[in-house]
Amino acid sequence: MKILDNPAKDSWKKQLARPVFKTKEINKIVKPILRKVKRNGDKALFKFAMEYDHVELDSLFPSEIEIQSASEALDPALKEAIQVAKANIERFHKAQETPELVDEVMPGVVCKRKSVAIQKVGLYIPGGTAPLFSTVLMLGIPAVLAGCKEIVLCSPPNKEGKIHPAILYTANLIGISKIVKVGGAQAIAAMTFGTESVPKVDKIFGPGNQFVTAAKQTATKYGVAIDMPAGPSEVLVYADASANASFVAADLLSQAEHGVDSQVILVTETEKFAKKVIKKIDEQLENLPRKDIAKKALANSRAVLMDNAEEAMELINFYAPEHLIISVEEEDKAVNAVYNAGSVFIGNFTPESAGDYASGTNHTLPTYGYARNYSGVSLDSFVKKITYQKITPEGLKNIGPTIEIMAENELLEGHKNAVTIRLKHLNKQNK
Amino acid sequence: MKILDNPAKDSWKKQLARPVFKTKEINKIVKPILRKVKRNGDKALFKFAMEYDHVELDSLFPSEIEIQSASEALDPALKEAIQVAKANIERFHKAQETPELVDEVMPGVVCKRKSVAIQKVGLYIPGGTAPLFSTVLMLGIPAVLAGCKEIVLCSPPNKEGKIHPAILYTANLIGISKIVKVGGAQAIAAMTFGTESVPKVDKIFGPGNQFVTAAKQTATKYGVAIDMPAGPSEVLVYADASANASFVAADLLSQAEHGVDSQVILVTETEKFAKKVIKKIDEQLENLPRKDIAKKALANSRAVLMDNAEEAMELINFYAPEHLIISVEEEDKAVNAVYNAGSVFIGNFTPESAGDYASGTNHTLPTYGYARNYSGVSLDSFVKKITYQKITPEGLKNIGPTIEIMAENELLEGHKNAVTIRLKHLNKQNK
Repeated sequence: MKILDNPAKDSWKKQLARPVFKTKEINKIVKPILRKVKRNGDKALFKFAMEYDHVELDSLFPSEIEIQSASEALDPALKEAIQVAKANIERFHKAQETPELVDEVMPGVVCKRKSVAIQKVGLYIPGGTAPLFSTVLMLGIPAVLAGCKEIVLCSPPNKEGKIHPAILYTANLIGISKIVKVGGAQAIAAMTFGTESVPKVDKIFGPGNQFVTAAKQTATKYGVAIDMPAGPSEVLVYADASANASFVAADLLSQAEHGVDSQVILVTETEKFAKKVIKKIDEQLENLPRKDIAKKALANSRAVLMDNAEEAMELINFYAPEHLIISVEEEDKAVNAVYNAGSVFIGNFTPESAGDYASGTNHTLPTYGYARNYSGVSLDSFVKKITYQKITPEGLKNIGPTIEIMAENELLEGHKNAVTIRLKHLNKQNK
Repeated sequence: MKILDNPAKDSWKKQLARPVFKTKEINKIVKPILRKVKRNGDKALFKFAMEYDHVELDSLFPSEIEIQSASEALDPALKEAIQVAKANIERFHKAQETPELVDEVMPGVVCKRKSVAIQKVGLYIPGGTAPLFSTVLMLGIPAVLAGCKEIVLCSPPNKEGKIHPAILYTANLIGISKIVKVGGAQAIAAMTFGTESVPKVDKIFGPGNQFVTAAKQTATKYGVAIDMPAGPSEVLVYADASANASFVAADLLSQAEHGVDSQVILVTETEKFAKKVIKKIDEQLENLPRKDIAKKALANSRAVLMDNAEEAMELINFYAPEHLIISVEEEDKAVNAVYNAGSVFIGNFTPESAGDYASGTNHTLPTYGYARNYSGVSLDSFVKKITYQKITPEGLKNIGPTIEIMAENELLEGHKNAVTIRLKHLNKQNK
């Protein structure tokens, strides 16, 4: 972990640069996959399962028995933990419901706004090194709460052709029944174009490797929406001497273990504290099963010394971290100064992993600087807000002349006429 | 306007297809523009003003005098109309504010969600055939209400090097002071990369021709967000015998006059009513200054006869119109069955132009079928919703074991350790 000592503002961009990806090469692999799924449907999915998951599937769906035995196979303590997390996530996402807005802006002119579920959504749950059942909770719970009519969950099968029991159990627990054994770019393609088994959806959610990310980006060209642009996970910890160096080290490592391209940043005042944290990282690292991954991620990472608290906050907002941990004496002041971050973790006893699993907030958050212009996934991500207006004859008399003058001055006579013809009709009636 | 008689469901996609665009050819023109602005900054903008706007600019900014004389040049009746519209739009968008959400999901585990303004936004206001000062209201008002720190408005100069006085007046009225004389793809490029005069922004809003649309799409590759994917404007009118054929004709024409690629659809039960509307269209068309445009748009348009009201609603949701006018006897039933639409206009006295200008709803809406998965512009479009969590030592004792078990089962020991190390510390303290 390199230490930067009060870097000049014009060097921030370079010094805090995130890893760059070779999108061209990845697209060269992803585009033919999309094309094949579009053309050959399920047949292509079975073929890709052989090629990438090394398994010959009988069916793209898990059997009843597979789902039932998933629950039986799981440690009761894990099931209970998943239920606790579910309750918290459900509670905090239910609280995000936007009540219907009705407002009579002028006598006889009523405007309304209502949340309406996106009808068909697709959730992608990676398999790979870790069975991300927590992501099933984070995407599935708001989808169910929003009232999406069709919820499809795609996840790759293992070499035995099965989906991890914790993923099946969690999906079943929250009421998602359409589970498809397909992973990677081919899963995104299936949900984009539809196949015999996989419905075409309106919006695709979920994390994934660079192939999944590239496929989601390409999917947007075919009318599908996606949750957000993706990049590797990241955390920035802002800590002063009131923080516990061991806790800070553990938090930085919890992010570094995600992947070799993860980035972790420490912002602090003194070199002394930075060195203390680095020492604790070295100690803790040795006990981590994923230490090789974490070591590589730490090579991309920085400890930034900032003398001035205001400038420190400026740098943090410039970086716009996905996860921001704030462990400083003047906590409120720092928290209130945040304007670019995905999710904020406050104080010495709020590890980032709390939000990853169970505090109730969503863990699908904008990375790679997108916290400047994107929100994390929330109940909002699964609805559209449709507006309505209803104008009475009285109301049209009130607002009509305003519309007529504006339309005329935008040289849109047809727009004006839609009002004029109605006002004339009303005037005739009055006579 | 072609009449379709109860088209079979599997033909809807083909029969209601929207116009297709040659994006490749447009991108060939747009990409070098982006590259040149990125490389040469303001110098490129001055050059493009010569090339595309046919004017040699002294400055990219309107002078104080230009802004002052804009207000003087304007008809007082127009100024008053703009003020009425402003009041309604402001009122309905202010009502969209999301209060801060704070919830103690478990004892000692507090989650929070807060709306925070996107810091820098760019608004694009087309010049061209019509001076769209109404779009200044629709984008500027929520940007100001959200509290965006920097609001840049770009609009092309006319041949005298001026911006239309109604655009200047409206921008000034709502408090937007950063106005830049630049249009087309070069304006989008300037806001994406930043130049000496134009700040780089986080999110770009606004309508435009195919070059602007293509430039916005490309801009997203450089970390900028955009309001939504764009397409030509469209309206679908759902009417029965209780509707007034002249009103329906006027509404269809008000949309058809937008552009040759606009699409208007009538859905109704009987051929008799459809023919009545078509007759009224032919009559009204003759008096429209933009009748040549409207005629071409009508060639893309359809009257669809649907015997069955439920299937009619299914077809409407399938089409997912930007604007949906509902003028039927069983109005509530129809309105409640809508799940894919940008904005809905209810009853015989609610012309679509009301929403375009002054009812209070936003006129920046998802077209081209994107009403399936996108909302129109609203106050939400100018904020991010950041989540926060704060856990007390007591709270971590409550939720910690849940996190530990889940992290362990996702094979993320580092995530688990961030909790374990804190719980151990707390247990030691208690002894």
